[in-house]
Amino acid sequence: MKIVVIGMGYVGLPLALLLSKKDNVIGYDINSKKINQLKKNIDDTNEVEKKNFNKAKKIFFTNDSSYLKNADFFIIAVPTPIKKNKEPDLRLLKKATILVAKNIKSQSVVILESTVFPGTTENICVPIIKRISKLEYINKNSFKNDVKGFYCGFCPERVNPGDKEHTIDKITKVISGSNQYAIKKINNLYKSICKKIYISSSIKTAEAAKIIENTQRDINIALINELSKIFKLLKIDTREVLATAGTKWNFSKYFPGMVGGHCIGVDPYYLTYKSKSVGFKPNVILAGRKINDGMSNYILKNIIKLYKKKNIIFTKSRILFVGCSFKENVTDTRNSKSIELVEKLNKLKAKVDILDQVINKDKIKDIKVFKSLKSLDKNSYDTIIFSVIHDKFKNTLKKNYKEYLKNKKKIIVDINGFLPKSDSDFRL
Amino acid sequence: MKIVVIGMGYVGLPLALLLSKKDNVIGYDINSKKINQLKKNIDDTNEVEKKNFNKAKKIFFTNDSSYLKNADFFIIAVPTPIKKNKEPDLRLLKKATILVAKNIKSQSVVILESTVFPGTTENICVPIIKRISKLEYINKNSFKNDVKGFYCGFCPERVNPGDKEHTIDKITKVISGSNQYAIKKINNLYKSICKKIYISSSIKTAEAAKIIENTQRDINIALINELSKIFKLLKIDTREVLATAGTKWNFSKYFPGMVGGHCIGVDPYYLTYKSKSVGFKPNVILAGRKINDGMSNYILKNIIKLYKKKNIIFTKSRILFVGCSFKENVTDTRNSKSIELVEKLNKLKAKVDILDQVINKDKIKDIKVFKSLKSLDKNSYDTIIFSVIHDKFKNTLKKNYKEYLKNKKKIIVDINGFLPKSDSDFRL
Repeated sequence: MKIVVIGMGYVGLPLALLLSKKDNVIGYDINSKKINQLKKNIDDTNEVEKKNFNKAKKIFFTNDSSYLKNADFFIIAVPTPIKKNKEPDLRLLKKATILVAKNIKSQSVVILESTVFPGTTENICVPIIKRISKLEYINKNSFKNDVKGFYCGFCPERVNPGDKEHTIDKITKVISGSNQYAIKKINNLYKSICKKIYISSSIKTAEAAKIIENTQRDINIALINELSKIFKLLKIDTREVLATAGTKWNFSKYFPGMVGGHCIGVDPYYLTYKSKSVGFKPNVILAGRKINDGMSNYILKNIIKLYKKKNIIFTKSRILFVGCSFKENVTDTRNSKSIELVEKLNKLKAKVDILDQVINKDKIKDIKVFKSLKSLDKNSYDTIIFSVIHDKFKNTLKKNYKEYLKNKKKIIVDINGFLPKSDSDFRL
Repeated sequence: MKIVVIGMGYVGLPLALLLSKKDNVIGYDINSKKINQLKKNIDDTNEVEKKNFNKAKKIFFTNDSSYLKNADFFIIAVPTPIKKNKEPDLRLLKKATILVAKNIKSQSVVILESTVFPGTTENICVPIIKRISKLEYINKNSFKNDVKGFYCGFCPERVNPGDKEHTIDKITKVISGSNQYAIKKINNLYKSICKKIYISSSIKTAEAAKIIENTQRDINIALINELSKIFKLLKIDTREVLATAGTKWNFSKYFPGMVGGHCIGVDPYYLTYKSKSVGFKPNVILAGRKINDGMSNYILKNIIKLYKKKNIIFTKSRILFVGCSFKENVTDTRNSKSIELVEKLNKLKAKVDILDQVINKDKIKDIKVFKSLKSLDKNSYDTIIFSVIHDKFKNTLKKNYKEYLKNKKKIIVDINGFLPKSDSDFRL
C-alpha cells in the first residue's frame, strides 16, 4: 500500500511518520528546504523528536510530485490560513487538491485533515478532482463501489502544538467517509496508529465538529478577556476570581490572554465566512473574535498608561520583552500576538529587546533584537513585559529577572500571571 | 448561637435546615403561605425531602420579624431578579437588608448568599445597615474587632435546582469576609455543613466569581444555539456535530436550548449592568444573551414554517406541548421559556394543551389547559412539541406519544433531542 501525505507541517509530519511504521509513505512538501531538513531527521517545528524519525523506516520525503503517482491514499494536511480581510485562504488547499487530482487512480481514497468550513471537502475539493482526473466520486448515492472512481473522507487533525501528551496515537481520531466502503478503508488506515476511532455521521458533520472545537475555545477565552476588562475597571483581580469560580464542579477553566497562532484565532473565521455566505451573521462568535483580536491593543494602552503614571518616555526607554512565539513551548511565531505587540511598541520608538530562546528566528521577517539569557545587560531595562514563558526558562527567569531592571521607575507587565500578583504593575 | 436565614426558597431553605442540625435557626420568609407550608414540612420547590425536615429539630419558621432580634448570624438568601428593562431588581435584597439592620446587634455577622454584581455587599448593603443600626462596619481597615460594629461576608449559593447530587453539603463552599476575624467566624459556621471551604481573597472577588459561573454557562449555551442556527442553514444536525466534537479531550459539553429560570438567564444582566455603569459595554456577554433570549422566537418561526409546509392552519390545530417548567425535574415555571413559547402559540390561536405533571400549577397566572398522561385524547393532536422532559415520564412518553397524534399531516417538534433524529420534523 502506498500513502501520500501532502504538507509536512505540525499535522502532516507526525502523521506520516506514524503511518510509515507499517506502510510505504511519501511525505510531500513544496518547500525544498524543509524536505532537505527532514531528510536529515530535523523537524523545525520541534514537534517530532529524532528518535521518531529513526523508527520510521518506510518514509520518503520529497518535493518532487512525480513520486505521488497512483497512491492508494492521499492525505492532505496543508495550512488553511485566512487572508488579510479575514476570509478563508484556500489557495494551498486547492493547489494540493490539484496535485492529488493529477496523480490519483481509480479506487484511491482522498482524505482531508486540514481545518475547513463545512462543505469544503465535497463542494470544493471533490469537483476539482473530478474535473482533472475524470474519475467518478463514489459516495452514498453511487450505485456500487467498483465504478472507476475515488473515495473521500474528512478526518480532522487534533494537533495541539507543544503538547506532547495528546499526540495522534493517544487521542480519539474522528473519521468520516463518502460511503460505507470508504469509511471501512479509512478506519483500517487509522486504527493501526490511533488509540480510538470515532466515525462521524457524515463528512460535513466531521468538518463542522472540527471547526467548533476551536471556536468554542476562542469564545471562552474571549469571555474571560472581556471579564478581565470589566474587572480591571472594578479593581478586581481576574485570576483571583477564576481561582474562586474554578472551585465549582462545572466551571470550565480558561484564562485571559492574547489568542494567536494558526488555529484558535483563525478557524472561527472559516465558520463565520460560511455562515455569512448563507445569510446569517454569527454575532456571538464575531464578538469573541473582536475581543481577542483587540487584546494586544488593550495591553498596549495599559502599558502607555503606566509610562505616563511613572513619567517614563518611550523614546528613552529600554524594554525587555519575554517570549514571542504564538504560545508556550513552540518555535512558531506565525500570527503571534506578542510579535504584534512588539511591533506596536517599536512604533512608539521604544527600544525593545526580545528574550526568546525557543523560537525559530529565521522565520521572523523584520529585524528584531534577540537576546539570550546570558547576553542580557543587568540594571538596564525600564520595563519587562512577560508574555510567553516557555517551561524550560521559567525557574531561571523567576529567580533572576529583577537583575535586568533599572533601580528606579521600573515597570513590570505580566500578561499571563507568571509572577505573584503584587510583583507586577499590570496583568490580565 | 442564633442564626437567621432570610428567604426560604431554593437557597435559604436547604441551608437553614442543614444549619439547624447544630444551631438554633430562624427560617424567615415574608410569604405567610410558604411559612405555613414549611411548618407542615412541605417544600413546594421540591428541593427538600420530608425526611430532611425531620432531621432539623432546631428550626423555627416564621414570617414575624420580631423573632429576628439579636441573631449572631444573618444570612440573606432572597431572590435577585431583573426588571422588565433587564436591569437588576434589588428591591427584595434592600428590604431584607433593612430587616437585618433593624435587628442586628454588635458583633453580628451579615452574610449575603444571593447572586449580585461585584460591590453590592459593601457598597449597597453595608451602608444601609450602618445607617439604620448606627453600628460600625468592621473590615480590613478597622483598627480592632471589638468596636461596636458588625461584620460582613459574601458566600455565594451554588444551588442547581433539580440536582440532588451537588447539594450544599457535598460541594466546595466559597466564603469571604470583611476581615480575618469575620472569615474565621464564617468559616466555623459553614465548615460544619459543607464538604470543603474555599476562602476567596475578598468579598468582591467572591461576588465576581459567582456571577461569572452562570455567565460562562450562558455564553456557552449561546454559542451552541448560534451554531445550531448556522448548521440548520447548512443542513447539518447540531447534535451529531456535538457528539463528534465531544470526543476531543478538552471539548466542553453544552447543548442548544432555551435558557430560562432565575439564574443563567438573569445573572449575566447583573454583570452587564455593572460593566456598563463603569463605561464598558460587554459585547460578548450581550451577544450571548441576545441569542438565548431569542430562541423561543426562533423555534416559533420554524414551527410556523412546518405548518406552512404541511398545510396545517393554526386556528384549526391542536398542539400538545410537553413540559413547561424552566428546566427538567423542577416544579418552577418562573421565567420559563416554554411558557413563553406556549403564549406565542396561543397568540396564533392554536389550541395548546400542556402536559406537565411536575410543575406547580398554582404559580402560573394565566389559565392554561393542563393535561395528565391519563387524560390525553388519542388520535387528536396535529402537533406535539417536546420541550422539557422530566426524567420520571421519559420512558412512558417515548413509548406512547404516537398514540396522541392524528394519523395525517402531523408535526413533531423535538426541541432538545429527546427522540432519535429521524423521528422529529425539527430539533435544535
